[in-house]
Amino acid sequence: MKDFEFCIPTKIVFGKDRIREIGAFAKKYGKKLLLVYGQSSIKKNGVYDKVVKSLDAAGLKYTEFSGVKSNPVLSHVNKGIEIAKKENVDFVLAVGGGSAIDEAKAIASGLCYDGNVWDFYNGKKTIEETLPILTIPTLPAAASEMNGGSVITNEQTRQKFGIIDDHLFPAVSILDPLVTFSVPLDYTAYGAVDAISHLTEGYFTHDDNWVPIQDRYVEGLVRTIIESTDIVLKNPHDYDGRSTLMWAASLAWNGMSVAGVSGAAVPNHMFAHVLGAFYDIAHGAALSIIIPAWMQYVYKNNLERFAGFAKEVFKISGGQLQDDALEGIERLKGWFKKIGAPVSFKDAGIPENEIDQLSKSALELAGLWKIKGYTIETIRDIYKLCAK
Amino acid sequence: MKDFEFCIPTKIVFGKDRIREIGAFAKKYGKKLLLVYGQSSIKKNGVYDKVVKSLDAAGLKYTEFSGVKSNPVLSHVNKGIEIAKKENVDFVLAVGGGSAIDEAKAIASGLCYDGNVWDFYNGKKTIEETLPILTIPTLPAAASEMNGGSVITNEQTRQKFGIIDDHLFPAVSILDPLVTFSVPLDYTAYGAVDAISHLTEGYFTHDDNWVPIQDRYVEGLVRTIIESTDIVLKNPHDYDGRSTLMWAASLAWNGMSVAGVSGAAVPNHMFAHVLGAFYDIAHGAALSIIIPAWMQYVYKNNLERFAGFAKEVFKISGGQLQDDALEGIERLKGWFKKIGAPVSFKDAGIPENEIDQLSKSALELAGLWKIKGYTIETIRDIYKLCAK
Repeated sequence: MKDFEFCIPTKIVFGKDRIREIGAFAKKYGKKLLLVYGQSSIKKNGVYDKVVKSLDAAGLKYTEFSGVKSNPVLSHVNKGIEIAKKENVDFVLAVGGGSAIDEAKAIASGLCYDGNVWDFYNGKKTIEETLPILTIPTLPAAASEMNGGSVITNEQTRQKFGIIDDHLFPAVSILDPLVTFSVPLDYTAYGAVDAISHLTEGYFTHDDNWVPIQDRYVEGLVRTIIESTDIVLKNPHDYDGRSTLMWAASLAWNGMSVAGVSGAAVPNHMFAHVLGAFYDIAHGAALSIIIPAWMQYVYKNNLERFAGFAKEVFKISGGQLQDDALEGIERLKGWFKKIGAPVSFKDAGIPENEIDQLSKSALELAGLWKIKGYTIETIRDIYKLCAK
Repeated sequence: MKDFEFCIPTKIVFGKDRIREIGAFAKKYGKKLLLVYGQSSIKKNGVYDKVVKSLDAAGLKYTEFSGVKSNPVLSHVNKGIEIAKKENVDFVLAVGGGSAIDEAKAIASGLCYDGNVWDFYNGKKTIEETLPILTIPTLPAAASEMNGGSVITNEQTRQKFGIIDDHLFPAVSILDPLVTFSVPLDYTAYGAVDAISHLTEGYFTHDDNWVPIQDRYVEGLVRTIIESTDIVLKNPHDYDGRSTLMWAASLAWNGMSVAGVSGAAVPNHMFAHVLGAFYDIAHGAALSIIIPAWMQYVYKNNLERFAGFAKEVFKISGGQLQDDALEGIERLKGWFKKIGAPVSFKDAGIPENEIDQLSKSALELAGLWKIKGYTIETIRDIYKLCAK
């Protein structure tokens, strides 16, 4: 096993209707806070009301800062920093999906830094301090509530950069499965695809022969995400299904699955990122197109692991390694279809005539993210498989 | 899923020869420390030399406090508190197995409290503060390096009490697999049994119908512990085997496997605890006797889970549930035998004529630990199975 360091200082508060406790947890971090959220969905589903009621009951003063976009942008981050400075807040609370949380992390960092917060994202500076970050995630997918990552887009430079820093772990995250009951079924499915990709990217790209802790962890969580998503899509108010999906998604990208492995990379996210930038397609939907195509392209170089995945996740075994591996990929693709996630360009209304431009963008990203082994030809071939 | 709170603030530093970094990590916590360890084994295997060299290089002053027993006792804890107070240490560093770490936790708590530290263990007081606790575990088993537990024996009152408190999480634990190369094979095996028991106790006693995250986590880690122990017993210097066993043992009892489950109890530890108190038998050796007997006694009430365990861990399936379940238990028992762990009173030289006294003690413990469903008769029956 490779050397690693591992720490998740975030306090997870998990359970039914526990967002009502946010005030009690939050008041340990000060008296004034910036309440960061996206659009109006948290007002429609009652989450907003419960949260502010709890903050009020705890005697906390909050300044609202809404309008976070699904790809959070730097200009909005800067606006948040400005308002929070004026209001002299003690900490930041995000209520929303990964974007609201990522933006809250950027604001909390910017508030302890005199320069431009973008300096952290382009690697000019490293974070030395942040205000405390509290989160109430509303969509099981990104796991930002339990990791030290944040992705922000700079509209001026047209760069979308992500950072990982120990300072960006939330202090407290309240995971309340009731909050997710109203997530639309398509976004529930996309979130599940995203969580699965977080697990499988490392699993299929690490270059270790034997890391059973991490491999079994991934296989177990992928099985669980498939099972719980099936339950939830049948009955969106199934508490066991929603709560299991929620906890699994957080565990899928909190560092556990890659602690101790070598060479894990995120090629699926690279390909999907470009699709998202070109066609404004949901992140999980871009991933469900890419994952099966990428797997079909690379599985032959990693037959045993792909066959192992088929065996452990889908109970496929007994055939030739190649057949088992392929059947596993087909089963995953079939499941994506079943839950309503696109598995081809056609499914998502993406044209086939811009593959060259897509490929150039992806190659640039491969350089930026230091993902090895991809040429313009291999990238093009994989996008072509998506168009089939 | 049941409501839960979850936080592991410990920084894990994992890797080859990383104990040489202890000074660099430790100096963030002050200038003077109490170095807590057991007997002379860390001097024989070179661990002591590496640690003090690193502490010296970081300019740290340390006061040595050795002689921790394998069941750490209150009088020795109090002696440690006295010395540490006199020396005015800033933090505590434990180098050793679970006992050295548990005692260091007790000392670190006592140093921030004016009363008797036993007040925390008998439940009269709750911990409000401790000095920082750093650990270098040398035996994969107890997982005290990654949890908030501590067990201390009060010789005067003849009580062995354990507590769990968030303040008792170590600040930093350096897990260096090289340190474990010299663990004797019998203690390597006992440690593996202990880690397996930490996983299976909750798994077989929780009363949830469907907690796949936790169940898959347990099954994966049990498989891994069996595989890695087999490797290590064949080649004690196999780095992959030793490192996998070490990380798996920490993950086995860090709270993950029981977060969100209802009703998990530790009956195997209850039975084993009494054997340990009566016959001074190693903790893991007591457990390897108890586990198969306990399983044989209770499996009929929980057939599906026992059959599931057989299927996921040992790939046994296709028979009647009862047959699969029993075969799984037999396989685990056979594996304990194979690795040299006792599976009967006879194996461990324990007489059969004190079962009544053992049973009375265990019943008292059941009351103390609030383990439900055990009468003097059921307890006696299970001990009798051990004597078969």
